[in-house]
Amino acid sequence: MCTAAMGPRGVPLIVVAALGLSVFAMVVHWCLSWRKGFSWDGSSRQFNWHPVLMLTGPVVLYGLALLSYRFPCAHVMPKFRWKVLHAGLQAIAFLLTVVGLVAVFDFHNAQKIPNMYSLHSWFGLAAVLLFTLQGLLGLSVFFFPSSPTHLRSAAKPLHVFFGIFIYCIILATAGMGITEKLIFSLKKTNRTLPYSDSPPESLFVNALGMLVMAYGGCVLFIVTRPQWQWPQDDHREVDSGS
Amino acid sequence: MCTAAMGPRGVPLIVVAALGLSVFAMVVHWCLSWRKGFSWDGSSRQFNWHPVLMLTGPVVLYGLALLSYRFPCAHVMPKFRWKVLHAGLQAIAFLLTVVGLVAVFDFHNAQKIPNMYSLHSWFGLAAVLLFTLQGLLGLSVFFFPSSPTHLRSAAKPLHVFFGIFIYCIILATAGMGITEKLIFSLKKTNRTLPYSDSPPESLFVNALGMLVMAYGGCVLFIVTRPQWQWPQDDHREVDSGS
Repeated sequence: MCTAAMGPRGVPLIVVAALGLSVFAMVVHWCLSWRKGFSWDGSSRQFNWHPVLMLTGPVVLYGLALLSYRFPCAHVMPKFRWKVLHAGLQAIAFLLTVVGLVAVFDFHNAQKIPNMYSLHSWFGLAAVLLFTLQGLLGLSVFFFPSSPTHLRSAAKPLHVFFGIFIYCIILATAGMGITEKLIFSLKKTNRTLPYSDSPPESLFVNALGMLVMAYGGCVLFIVTRPQWQWPQDDHREVDSGS
Repeated sequence: MCTAAMGPRGVPLIVVAALGLSVFAMVVHWCLSWRKGFSWDGSSRQFNWHPVLMLTGPVVLYGLALLSYRFPCAHVMPKFRWKVLHAGLQAIAFLLTVVGLVAVFDFHNAQKIPNMYSLHSWFGLAAVLLFTLQGLLGLSVFFFPSSPTHLRSAAKPLHVFFGIFIYCIILATAGMGITEKLIFSLKKTNRTLPYSDSPPESLFVNALGMLVMAYGGCVLFIVTRPQWQWPQDDHREVDSGS
């Protein structure tokens, strides 16, 4: 009953879209207004690509990709189209992740800052490795028509779980990254009020962090609702999956 | 078929127990070996209660509480006993959370450090408020026998979702707290190598952070398996719930 489902599905998806756009707008505003904008010259302005690309790619677009099969009336069109959308959004998210990583590694190297020492970077590495593995296995098993049905059935619950778990790691990594950046940037020596004195930048960016949590929460809520799942998958092993 | 279920359920639960004990042992070891141990005198040794209590309560015990109904052969005993275990573990987790908060607020006040300025504290506040609300609503709806069945059925999917979502916020908050503490403590001025030079303490505590992620991942995996759920709840609205 596609028409009946439009209303109840449309509203949460509009909320998600609004939150996702707000995350993007806020991180760009942060970098433009307080962090001197963007460049690709090894300076802190190159670093600024990192939060923008990471919040746009692995947070907003990855979250949207999780919802591919949940759009209103999705099931009246062939499932393969939504599969292309799911894989396409993940591919863009992955591409932005790679560029975001190059931005921060280049910046670190130019500034002689060691790489991979923080818990943020360890979580990030785990997320990227799992994301890569999940993508390769997902393409092999679900995208190409040659894989046998029993393999798809067996792999689906794991694909769904790891897709959501990787997203949780991504959200935690984002929170740690924001925390690091605010502590490193907001110091008396950098001619601003320190983080502990809650200057306007810290309030704004903390609010951005909370918005990321709200966006992630909405995505996780929609994706785990059994009544939103693809109607063909009417067996419990794929309860929260595509 | 309780006997048949013992094997496949027992192994993941033993892994979870081992990971949970390791988290507890590592955070205590961190505070004893590198952070001068414990006291209640407003010094940094009072602060040390904060990570120990927060990783023990809202991370390890809360996670264990989520698994209350998933223990091997759970369903051969009355469900109310597991409900008491679930509520009891959550109550202990909540108590430890409150003492952990008092420890850090007291420490901040004694050291004239502002409270509630960081994203870690904002996430933590959100988690505590949601945890409190979830506990009060959970007790009112599920624990006391007077609430009507239709209310329980309607509330259960929300109780399950928010129980898991709050846990995700807790895990992210833990990651941010570890990040903050390492940045603040590991500075040249504190007579250690800085965080960016990866001294042994930072490697150990980053590993603790990864262990928290692994523990949380195992909890989330077990709790979202449909085949592990309480057998009476054989309808899809409570697919990942008690």
